[in-house]
Amino acid sequence: MKTTDKAYLAGFLDGDGSIHVRLKPNNTYRFGFQVVPSIVFYQSSKEMKYLYDIKNLLKIGYIRERNDGIVEYIIGDNQGMAYLIKQIFPFLKLKKKQAKLLLKILSNKNNIRSAKDFYNLAKEIDAFEGLNYSKKRKNNSERVKDYLLEKGLLTP
Amino acid sequence: MKTTDKAYLAGFLDGDGSIHVRLKPNNTYRFGFQVVPSIVFYQSSKEMKYLYDIKNLLKIGYIRERNDGIVEYIIGDNQGMAYLIKQIFPFLKLKKKQAKLLLKILSNKNNIRSAKDFYNLAKEIDAFEGLNYSKKRKNNSERVKDYLLEKGLLTP
Repeated sequence: MKTTDKAYLAGFLDGDGSIHVRLKPNNTYRFGFQVVPSIVFYQSSKEMKYLYDIKNLLKIGYIRERNDGIVEYIIGDNQGMAYLIKQIFPFLKLKKKQAKLLLKILSNKNNIRSAKDFYNLAKEIDAFEGLNYSKKRKNNSERVKDYLLEKGLLTP
Repeated sequence: MKTTDKAYLAGFLDGDGSIHVRLKPNNTYRFGFQVVPSIVFYQSSKEMKYLYDIKNLLKIGYIRERNDGIVEYIIGDNQGMAYLIKQIFPFLKLKKKQAKLLLKILSNKNNIRSAKDFYNLAKEIDAFEGLNYSKKRKNNSERVKDYLLEKGLLTP
């Protein structure tokens, strides 16, 4: 990728993109929650071709059309996210913290050995709420803790 | 400005910015409407510092805080807009057409000699509606035409 493409993508992500990790309740997972990280670019459906151009440039992720006239270009696989962040990190201005936190979580996610480790990971994920000015999430570390205590996986 | 700064700003404007010209009714103007072009960057008020950083980099425009938690960095003077577009044009992907149209309007605006010229300019401004997927505007060339006819400045 050209350096100017990297800088452009950093600007585009800063302006209209999202770096995020959420906790999704799922009983088939060992600790009751799936960790779902993602980097998303948004556009009006009328600009779908433009998102495909970016996808063709990056060769990662997939496009999803929502019902409300918005198209999302989602990068959700660990390798793809790590690659993209590596490329654009030097040029990010607004979302540098989110990018760092995502990388940290991707790394820690691979080293979960206990319910306590998972609870600590959930607390790291909570930090996105402040960084992204998002609404208070239902599925946060408190909920993870409740679940782990209830299942006897964690001791109070 | 560094080339990567230019590419970054192009991405940021493509993602979350606006290139626009509107017609503002104003009886003190010769043809009843003021032509108001602007390039605007938006952010949450919490990121106001970030917009000031961009303003300090570009040394043009001004910052305006809205009531709804959004801050706007507005470049509305002809020289500033022409300068910014010149810098970022090669890197724009989504808003290249808007940038071209703005430059064309800035140039034509200086060559208005008759009501007919002004009406033609208003028709060029209408084109932003399609490019920006904005709602149908009340103050469009039809309205300009009605005004000019009513004042006897234009003949049907």
